[in-house]
Amino acid sequence: MNRPYTIATLGSHSALQILKGAHDEGFRTLAIANRDTERLYRSFLFVDEVIGIDRYQDFPNLIGELQKRKIIIVPHGSFVAYLSLEEHKRMTIPYFGNKAVLDWEASRELQRDWLSRAGLKLPRQFRGGSEIDRPVIVKLYGAAGGKGYMFIRDAADFEARASDLKEAYIIQEYIIGVPLYIHYFYSPLENKLEIMSMDRRYETNVDSLGRIPANAQEGMDVSPSYVVVGNSPVSLRESMLAEAYRMGEDVVRVSKEICGPKGLFGAFCIETIITPDMQFYVMEISARIVAGTNLFIDGSPYSYLNYSEPMSTGRRIARELKNALLTKNLRFVLDDSSVL
Amino acid sequence: MNRPYTIATLGSHSALQILKGAHDEGFRTLAIANRDTERLYRSFLFVDEVIGIDRYQDFPNLIGELQKRKIIIVPHGSFVAYLSLEEHKRMTIPYFGNKAVLDWEASRELQRDWLSRAGLKLPRQFRGGSEIDRPVIVKLYGAAGGKGYMFIRDAADFEARASDLKEAYIIQEYIIGVPLYIHYFYSPLENKLEIMSMDRRYETNVDSLGRIPANAQEGMDVSPSYVVVGNSPVSLRESMLAEAYRMGEDVVRVSKEICGPKGLFGAFCIETIITPDMQFYVMEISARIVAGTNLFIDGSPYSYLNYSEPMSTGRRIARELKNALLTKNLRFVLDDSSVL
Amino acid sequence: MNRPYTIATLGSHSALQILKGAHDEGFRTLAIANRDTERLYRSFLFVDEVIGIDRYQDFPNLIGELQKRKIIIVPHGSFVAYLSLEEHKRMTIPYFGNKAVLDWEASRELQRDWLSRAGLKLPRQFRGGSEIDRPVIVKLYGAAGGKGYMFIRDAADFEARASDLKEAYIIQEYIIGVPLYIHYFYSPLENKLEIMSMDRRYETNVDSLGRIPANAQEGMDVSPSYVVVGNSPVSLRESMLAEAYRMGEDVVRVSKEICGPKGLFGAFCIETIITPDMQFYVMEISARIVAGTNLFIDGSPYSYLNYSEPMSTGRRIARELKNALLTKNLRFVLDDSSVL
Repeated sequence: MNRPYTIATLGSHSALQILKGAHDEGFRTLAIANRDTERLYRSFLFVDEVIGIDRYQDFPNLIGELQKRKIIIVPHGSFVAYLSLEEHKRMTIPYFGNKAVLDWEASRELQRDWLSRAGLKLPRQFRGGSEIDRPVIVKLYGAAGGKGYMFIRDAADFEARASDLKEAYIIQEYIIGVPLYIHYFYSPLENKLEIMSMDRRYETNVDSLGRIPANAQEGMDVSPSYVVVGNSPVSLRESMLAEAYRMGEDVVRVSKEICGPKGLFGAFCIETIITPDMQFYVMEISARIVAGTNLFIDGSPYSYLNYSEPMSTGRRIARELKNALLTKNLRFVLDDSSVL
Repeated sequence: MNRPYTIATLGSHSALQILKGAHDEGFRTLAIANRDTERLYRSFLFVDEVIGIDRYQDFPNLIGELQKRKIIIVPHGSFVAYLSLEEHKRMTIPYFGNKAVLDWEASRELQRDWLSRAGLKLPRQFRGGSEIDRPVIVKLYGAAGGKGYMFIRDAADFEARASDLKEAYIIQEYIIGVPLYIHYFYSPLENKLEIMSMDRRYETNVDSLGRIPANAQEGMDVSPSYVVVGNSPVSLRESMLAEAYRMGEDVVRVSKEICGPKGLFGAFCIETIITPDMQFYVMEISARIVAGTNLFIDGSPYSYLNYSEPMSTGRRIARELKNALLTKNLRFVLDDSSVL
Repeated sequence: MNRPYTIATLGSHSALQILKGAHDEGFRTLAIANRDTERLYRSFLFVDEVIGIDRYQDFPNLIGELQKRKIIIVPHGSFVAYLSLEEHKRMTIPYFGNKAVLDWEASRELQRDWLSRAGLKLPRQFRGGSEIDRPVIVKLYGAAGGKGYMFIRDAADFEARASDLKEAYIIQEYIIGVPLYIHYFYSPLENKLEIMSMDRRYETNVDSLGRIPANAQEGMDVSPSYVVVGNSPVSLRESMLAEAYRMGEDVVRVSKEICGPKGLFGAFCIETIITPDMQFYVMEISARIVAGTNLFIDGSPYSYLNYSEPMSTGRRIARELKNALLTKNLRFVLDDSSVL
């Protein structure tokens, strides 16, 4: 590469990991931060440039300027939170990933269709409160980071609280089991899937309820919330790893049918709950880098198997971009809207 | 070494760690996988060879063929699960570890005897349901990976559920405290014990019960299960580390008396529960590499103290074998049945 | 440096990390251990010297001898536990840190004043049992490692158990949320704050209560205890990281006013609970290296951002001392009582 590419992302979510990885693979790096986070991103030497904006929602206003430079955008969860589907698609800056996947991910129905076709086991869904015959989780459509999830014990509990539900929602069977989030990377250049790492979320207040004795809980009338404020590392029993790998491959295979030919590539995450019969129930898919990978900026036990050096998901993305540049295959790892 | 040795193991449990470690120490590597896991093991570059078999129980049929090659078997939990004690002992392929330990580990009475003689604090055991005067855990004899454990509240609860118990079992006092699994490596070449890492198990559904509010649990009538599906990392308060070290040394010392002269060597794990008075109660010992070490394929805070490079337990085993080869001491780290 | 400095500490708490870090930065290392821990510290090659004493409280008797050598003390929690404020201040051996901070940390009132002036959100405190209108935690003044904390449900519960309270204590609102301990390092040489790592404590028995079904808990009448026996790793949602960074900066800034001009420098930890509205409630500050950093002897995802090599907090301290020596600034990173 002559003038090097700059890898840019919003200053949030997994930006540190993405930019550190980009730096380590030889790219220049740019964080678009807001007034609260600017100082933080400037404090790291691997961040070559910080552009401050007032609100992340203002990012589209920057695009004209960025388009004149040799920039590649690596998106993460905050892009989905702050930019509409429309804004995503209007952007023509080189963009790592396939925007066509966004439609299949954003709609809870389409996503369910995708995961079912991949043969994954999904929790039961209920169409209305009267159908509820067991504990459920009610999830607002736009709920992000676990905010707006409600634990509901039964139909009566649903009736009592239904008035709080102003937005569209789904009602999902509450699966009793342990959560596991599996971080994958699918390389279109090598046509190969890798398991990068795993985590479980750290959710307030639900992950602290067990610390309150049962009898005290009753007096306190606590109700669980599921706001994600962090992550903690987990490894998976090795005898279940082949199935975890297969789930990832099946999701990629079906994605090529539904939003082909490129389908889903790069980083993604399947969010599961594992029941005592050792079944994976799939709650959701995230079609890009997830925050749980932030635990592994210095590498994970799984990525070490393939790399023998600290390989985060952020760095793996930059590695793919570098490999694409070196082999003149950049188009294959960017969305088709990208104007080079 | 002229023609290098191949390190072989069953494709399960901690095989990736063992084979990665073997590769990093200069050995050739072989995974014996089944039809479900073959693809997974083939996907890693450090696995030089994969032999597929229909069921892990068929492994003994392979032995004749393997015996003609320069192979060392590194066993893990799946060997114990799929091969009988008899089959273990009939094998004459070079085998890392001392098979005589298997008898002392397999029998719950002998194991208890071993741990008591080492001065470890053990939970009380009850001979029958009528003796139960506190909450207990009932464990089936062959229970592996936490499957078949039952939490029992009192004698009445035991009576109500005793009919489910078709196999032999033990009744163990339920110790209230936090679990900690300590991973050791004892080197017969250096006559030195190392603490490699630590974990706690990730068990479904018991590790998710606390996320359900107490009042909702009652309506749901959930009963805890202890199926191990993963692990998560923990470190130990440093003021308790000397005692953890001593427990490991005591277990090794006694093993030389009961199944000497070699006794227990290589990797092992002491499974503890720590009570509020900072006592270690020892639940069980595993006389080989445990799955919790999979968290540390890229090294652990404890192994870093000794090695300053990523040293997993799997790699430590391969390092011991390499050191034995270089000093012509291979016999000292293999079972006496090994025909070289 | 001609004759190199020796870094010395008590054999406990985070001594392994401190001495490993010192060794890796080129210092000689000395552990002062007791009869129980001597063997452990001698087993590590990076510990150049071990002095055994009968009880850690006897450490002041050693000081005369140590003063004749080229030694720097790096203190940790056990210094605070075993040495009085008076003994601390009488010592004139070179001491990493500012002893003036000790007064502000040791008094619960002064500490609260410090944290309030830094703008941190603190849990409500109650002056007496009659004021209690919600669940609270009662903490004895000298409580260390979580020992002596009591969970109290309401005023009646307080009355029933108040007779157990022989020592001075505070009554603190019980905040429902997830704990997060943030490990900082402030460099006076670079005038820059770094986030080194994060953890949550592993407390017995409270972190195992959730594994007991609610209905069984009632029969068992378990009461929670908070004895810290370990730590486990966590990462923080990146959108909250700027605030975590700001909290650290504010604490350092105010420390320069209250115990200036040096204020708080080196390692410290802010102990928080995060509520569902994503607020950090600050429980306490520790003005030196905390045991949670022991999870990251081989580096953390956060320290990797700044160092691209395994940088523990212990090693970071040694790096600061080395940088001070190389630039002839040693005085700036030692307490003013230090006689060089």
